[in-house]
Amino acid sequence: MIGRYALSPLKEIWEEKRKYERWLQVELAVIEAFEREGTAPKGTAEKIKAKAHIDVLRIHEIEAEVDHDVIAFIKAVTENLGDEARFFHKGLTSSDVVDTALSLALVETGKFILEALDEFSDALKNKAKEHRKTIIMGRTHGVHAEPTSFGLKMLSFLAEAERNRDRLYSCLDRLAVGKLSGAVGNYANISPEIEKIALERLGLKPTKLSTQVIPRDIHAEFLSVLALIGSGIERLAVEIRHLQKTEVLEVQEPFKEKQRGSSAMPHKKNPILSERLSGMARLLRSYAQVEYENIPLWHERDISHSSTERIVFPDATMLAYYMLKKASYLVKNLTVNQERMLENFSHSKNLVFSQRVMLALVEKGMSREKAYKLIQKLSDRTWYEGIDFKKVVLKDPTISEYLKTQEISELFNPSYYLRNVEKIYRRFGL
Amino acid sequence: MIGRYALSPLKEIWEEKRKYERWLQVELAVIEAFEREGTAPKGTAEKIKAKAHIDVLRIHEIEAEVDHDVIAFIKAVTENLGDEARFFHKGLTSSDVVDTALSLALVETGKFILEALDEFSDALKNKAKEHRKTIIMGRTHGVHAEPTSFGLKMLSFLAEAERNRDRLYSCLDRLAVGKLSGAVGNYANISPEIEKIALERLGLKPTKLSTQVIPRDIHAEFLSVLALIGSGIERLAVEIRHLQKTEVLEVQEPFKEKQRGSSAMPHKKNPILSERLSGMARLLRSYAQVEYENIPLWHERDISHSSTERIVFPDATMLAYYMLKKASYLVKNLTVNQERMLENFSHSKNLVFSQRVMLALVEKGMSREKAYKLIQKLSDRTWYEGIDFKKVVLKDPTISEYLKTQEISELFNPSYYLRNVEKIYRRFGL
Amino acid sequence: MIGRYALSPLKEIWEEKRKYERWLQVELAVIEAFEREGTAPKGTAEKIKAKAHIDVLRIHEIEAEVDHDVIAFIKAVTENLGDEARFFHKGLTSSDVVDTALSLALVETGKFILEALDEFSDALKNKAKEHRKTIIMGRTHGVHAEPTSFGLKMLSFLAEAERNRDRLYSCLDRLAVGKLSGAVGNYANISPEIEKIALERLGLKPTKLSTQVIPRDIHAEFLSVLALIGSGIERLAVEIRHLQKTEVLEVQEPFKEKQRGSSAMPHKKNPILSERLSGMARLLRSYAQVEYENIPLWHERDISHSSTERIVFPDATMLAYYMLKKASYLVKNLTVNQERMLENFSHSKNLVFSQRVMLALVEKGMSREKAYKLIQKLSDRTWYEGIDFKKVVLKDPTISEYLKTQEISELFNPSYYLRNVEKIYRRFGL
Amino acid sequence: MIGRYALSPLKEIWEEKRKYERWLQVELAVIEAFEREGTAPKGTAEKIKAKAHIDVLRIHEIEAEVDHDVIAFIKAVTENLGDEARFFHKGLTSSDVVDTALSLALVETGKFILEALDEFSDALKNKAKEHRKTIIMGRTHGVHAEPTSFGLKMLSFLAEAERNRDRLYSCLDRLAVGKLSGAVGNYANISPEIEKIALERLGLKPTKLSTQVIPRDIHAEFLSVLALIGSGIERLAVEIRHLQKTEVLEVQEPFKEKQRGSSAMPHKKNPILSERLSGMARLLRSYAQVEYENIPLWHERDISHSSTERIVFPDATMLAYYMLKKASYLVKNLTVNQERMLENFSHSKNLVFSQRVMLALVEKGMSREKAYKLIQKLSDRTWYEGIDFKKVVLKDPTISEYLKTQEISELFNPSYYLRNVEKIYRRFGL
Repeated sequence: MIGRYALSPLKEIWEEKRKYERWLQVELAVIEAFEREGTAPKGTAEKIKAKAHIDVLRIHEIEAEVDHDVIAFIKAVTENLGDEARFFHKGLTSSDVVDTALSLALVETGKFILEALDEFSDALKNKAKEHRKTIIMGRTHGVHAEPTSFGLKMLSFLAEAERNRDRLYSCLDRLAVGKLSGAVGNYANISPEIEKIALERLGLKPTKLSTQVIPRDIHAEFLSVLALIGSGIERLAVEIRHLQKTEVLEVQEPFKEKQRGSSAMPHKKNPILSERLSGMARLLRSYAQVEYENIPLWHERDISHSSTERIVFPDATMLAYYMLKKASYLVKNLTVNQERMLENFSHSKNLVFSQRVMLALVEKGMSREKAYKLIQKLSDRTWYEGIDFKKVVLKDPTISEYLKTQEISELFNPSYYLRNVEKIYRRFGL
Repeated sequence: MIGRYALSPLKEIWEEKRKYERWLQVELAVIEAFEREGTAPKGTAEKIKAKAHIDVLRIHEIEAEVDHDVIAFIKAVTENLGDEARFFHKGLTSSDVVDTALSLALVETGKFILEALDEFSDALKNKAKEHRKTIIMGRTHGVHAEPTSFGLKMLSFLAEAERNRDRLYSCLDRLAVGKLSGAVGNYANISPEIEKIALERLGLKPTKLSTQVIPRDIHAEFLSVLALIGSGIERLAVEIRHLQKTEVLEVQEPFKEKQRGSSAMPHKKNPILSERLSGMARLLRSYAQVEYENIPLWHERDISHSSTERIVFPDATMLAYYMLKKASYLVKNLTVNQERMLENFSHSKNLVFSQRVMLALVEKGMSREKAYKLIQKLSDRTWYEGIDFKKVVLKDPTISEYLKTQEISELFNPSYYLRNVEKIYRRFGL
Repeated sequence: MIGRYALSPLKEIWEEKRKYERWLQVELAVIEAFEREGTAPKGTAEKIKAKAHIDVLRIHEIEAEVDHDVIAFIKAVTENLGDEARFFHKGLTSSDVVDTALSLALVETGKFILEALDEFSDALKNKAKEHRKTIIMGRTHGVHAEPTSFGLKMLSFLAEAERNRDRLYSCLDRLAVGKLSGAVGNYANISPEIEKIALERLGLKPTKLSTQVIPRDIHAEFLSVLALIGSGIERLAVEIRHLQKTEVLEVQEPFKEKQRGSSAMPHKKNPILSERLSGMARLLRSYAQVEYENIPLWHERDISHSSTERIVFPDATMLAYYMLKKASYLVKNLTVNQERMLENFSHSKNLVFSQRVMLALVEKGMSREKAYKLIQKLSDRTWYEGIDFKKVVLKDPTISEYLKTQEISELFNPSYYLRNVEKIYRRFGL
Repeated sequence: MIGRYALSPLKEIWEEKRKYERWLQVELAVIEAFEREGTAPKGTAEKIKAKAHIDVLRIHEIEAEVDHDVIAFIKAVTENLGDEARFFHKGLTSSDVVDTALSLALVETGKFILEALDEFSDALKNKAKEHRKTIIMGRTHGVHAEPTSFGLKMLSFLAEAERNRDRLYSCLDRLAVGKLSGAVGNYANISPEIEKIALERLGLKPTKLSTQVIPRDIHAEFLSVLALIGSGIERLAVEIRHLQKTEVLEVQEPFKEKQRGSSAMPHKKNPILSERLSGMARLLRSYAQVEYENIPLWHERDISHSSTERIVFPDATMLAYYMLKKASYLVKNLTVNQERMLENFSHSKNLVFSQRVMLALVEKGMSREKAYKLIQKLSDRTWYEGIDFKKVVLKDPTISEYLKTQEISELFNPSYYLRNVEKIYRRFGL
């Protein structure tokens, strides 16, 4: 990941040294399990822990020779050890260490992403509370449809974020597994009991069945959830970009005092953060695709996934985290222009009340088909001649047969459209 | 979906007439809710149901004119109705009907896919039971690693299938939602209460917050689970294709008596079913990608997803179902050649026991680093000179200092590698 | 492909019977080559042609038994032949026939797509000619930037279409290859000379090196070009959807007289065609992905690509064709509202002239940095206080030191921005 | 890109400082054009070049404030300039600089990738020359098909590499464009003539029609070609992985003297490089997907592509380069085990000659259908009873009626299958 989008604490999780520390953590957990089992003298792990230290450069040096990162790690760590070295990596295969440590890293990132998702939800919730009754035009196909509340928009993103939370939560549960089952997953040189004890110390469960590796559907699910999270944020970002269009301008991204929008046009205030988030969703989708392709490894494993995961896991988790943090910031600091929301109603000249008038006619006994045709005809007058729809309706003789002037006027009240909003808010405990 | 891969009962779910029937079902459920609420006379739904019938050609005729499928449907259905027509589609927007009916269809396909997944799991379970102790070479990087059991391979696919079951199950729960919340999702012309009653009759829950449509993250999750299922089957298919390679030939796909493998080469018996399944996984992955992109719809919805979903939903569900049914058939009818599995051990000239010898030396006090180097050197003799590794080990003077001939011989027993297999089986209740 | 999007003549190309006809065409071309070479009696092909007919049901019947479509085809065709049957499929492998015939189909679809692309280009060219000087606000980040011409927008899509034409053209050249090189591509039972003659009759060249099949990078390139075409149309579709938003309404999709926009809202006129095209681009992108994955077939070929291509090739080509035809229709029939384009300038209160004012100041000797800051400050007054930017500029004392009132007024003339438009048009010979 | 896969000189191209140097290069080229045109005093560019230097930290400092990287760059560079600063970035918009400079970078990477592709082709060509007549079993569906030459395999990858070269070459031609057409692409504040002169100095052509940016189909094509290159290398990598499987072992990746294959199993020699290359192809495919999605930018541009391209362009080009260099190394240093290739024929017990026997029978007058059935029956004896197919054929009474013993024996000569190999080599001038 490039520095620009790498935020703490995610960034540190993916530092090389931290990776080796996790590897050491796994090796030590196994030795502790040996101690518990009685096959290593008490205190072995403690001794190793005291002497072992991670020297990244030394590891690189050895790797350049043996062309195998785990072997380089073992050699570098054990060259400072005495007799206890015998117990180090005993009965293990590289993937026992690498994949178990990877789970530690992914679960850790997952927890931070979960926190960031909660922060995002809170921001949405607060914005929703503020704008419970803020009338805004609802739009379908990009075209004015019927009035709604700005708060409902926020609740819509909140509901999606909550679903993503549920997905991430179940997924992290499946992800919190390790494997210490040896070269082909049959515990030939290490026992399921040792695995259980060691993994417990690491906060992980055993994979129900591992091959040489933890099966990749588990990781692919994780990335597919990140792709869902990313696409959900993109939906919000696209909404903001639309609402900030010059002709609409109902919301505005925060714009810092000294910020400059364009090198050529001093007047520009652009929704650049939302645009950035839109783009990033594409990356998250593409990373999921890579990990899907990593599932059908050959036999007990091939190592084709490894190169991709060195890139995809850090990048996907850091981007998801970045997006959530920025989306929270965006929601919290969004300028909401309520006046403009009402002004924009004028663009559609009361046409958006067409359904209500039609339904009122049906209510009064006109057939639905006849009412639809009549209203479509009247709305065409507004559309093509630019006459306000309310005026058109008020003057129409057929309508007068069914509805009184007073009744008609009431049909054009936008507040009517919010009458059920409270009930929706209650679903969110708001 | 092309006929070739369209199996019943999935095929019928996606027939056009069935779609309209589901739309009618939704419309009727709403009218029944009106009856319960008292805003439509008792018996209205019943009367409509009696008169309404789906005339696909008539719908097409009208659609050609109005360019809107739901309006065409309503017109076609209601033109045979009398006064009850007034209640038909009342207060609804097209998406209320279309999206709720879509959930009915998807949930129905989902249940059949779940069943097929269970059948697949059963097939794997049975095969695993049969081959608990069937020794086969475990392979990593495509290269002989250490012996394992063929049953464990089956359990590995079973474990993955179980995870996919869990994912599908949670996903179907999220998918079993409808929406009758009107044009922009705020229940302007229909109440949350009506929605609740109507959806209950359809076996669905209300979407916690809908816009004009059910949010697409819900559908994207479904397709991402199908992509996981597909990629899991691909893993199995790739395994079989590998094991059926001429040089390996440890398993064989069922080959029917009159089947022909090649138009040019009369001797060919190819794993064509596994190859077909491998390919199909690519389609399932790509459909998930499409639905991810359908998430960020504009505002309260745009309709860009519609054209894609007309293709992607039928195709993805039918393919997933097809793949599961065929994979079950494949597993059930797979020829397993146990003799050949043992014969193939000879290809690696006992090299696969290298770790055991190394560990035995470490056990006897040799340092891990020294043992590794020694064994690597000895195994190179096997590798480059073709001498059986057991012979090389037996003749090595250093090894003789640590291990007796009898001890060495025992290290070369493949059964050793299965000693923990029972414990793994127990995790599956087998 | 579903009927809804299957247009003639693409639809017919993909009919099953046509596929078998192409297979027969390939088989006959080979026999004609045998005749030319002298290894089959003159007239053999003619005789076979007279007797052979494609009986789809009979082929299905046999395929149900032999589980191999080409063998079924050969058997069905030859069972009506006499002695000439000996020459039928002689020395060929199935893929010789299938892949060569596939090239025939793809090249045929490719030519129609090329034609449709030309029609699309023409539509854009005509629209560009009409609107050479039609002033419209240029927008970046969705925000007013600087004035431009609507014709230039059309030229932008034209330039992209032309690039796609070039790509498709080179790609079709690579695609116009067949292969008659036998089971593993080494011409064991058929000679390169026979291949050359036979392919020439079919309008194809030999693949420089085939395995059992034509290498799939060739097909993947084709689908990647279709994905580019699709994404280009999506760019146009998104532009139209934006310009048809209620607040903007500078263009409008054709809306048929009896068309209905919404089942609930009689007033709606939605850019549904553009939305449909946006969605379809997602499908084209995903099909390219599938074919990329089809490239790394095993050894001289595996058949995993086959199932995917039965779906992907018809669907991708039909969709690309559909999209181009509809995009042409859209461009030809687009309503362009020039008045509204000018009216919409008012939304940004002359802020879009900020760069010109800044550059004029720099021209007169102010430093760029100072000018930028000054203009940003002034434009903030417009932004936050709503005062027209021209007024703000006219009143600013610093600016008055550099520019006369008359000079300032001229800076606010939108026509200025079109002064180089003619030069751009000339690049297109317009 | 992570350090592990970042090779020189690609790595340096993407260093941040180099980016700013390219920006400066573009700015200077414009000023030189001004000089030529006479709107800037002679020597301005020279003076600026002498004084301007890139101070990355200073740029970061300013960017933290103004939140716009190009403005920060301009400010940082011009704060050391005197009066010439007036001409710096004059009439330009950020994208003029950024996108033109991006083309410089991409074209530069493209040229190195082209070189690496040529090196890869040369390696394949040499290997093909060496193994013109090296007999190897051709395999389809992973199953023995008919004999072929190992050299032909190499030629197959060569032919694909050549096609990719053609694609890359045409693509680089389209990519070698810049744009200096201002904020919305209409040359409002800069003339097409200035653009032409400036771009010429940079070795670029003007984009036929740019918006604020160079249209993204151009970049997407580039990434789609890289995806094709990657998938082609994957095909080679998968081939090697197959041929290095323990049971096959016909080739072997280079294995360095001190290299270690597994931390657990000292005997392992794994095709890790090929596996790595297989995985990386997935990344290249996914990056293409991202850039396809970047095509439909809003109006004259939105900036959603920017964040993705900061990651995707460096990563995709560096990976493509890395893959080509490693693939060349792999091909050059591949161990080819000719003996083993012949030995492996025994696995299929001469079944692979079935077609030849069948064709010989047809040649002698037997009908194709009868011959096919007979040979399938005989090959089943080999298949199920393990009797060598040649023996079965020699003993069959029906065959004896058509073919003499001597004739039969000749049918089993693998060299027969190479008789047209020379003709294929000639197509490559070999």
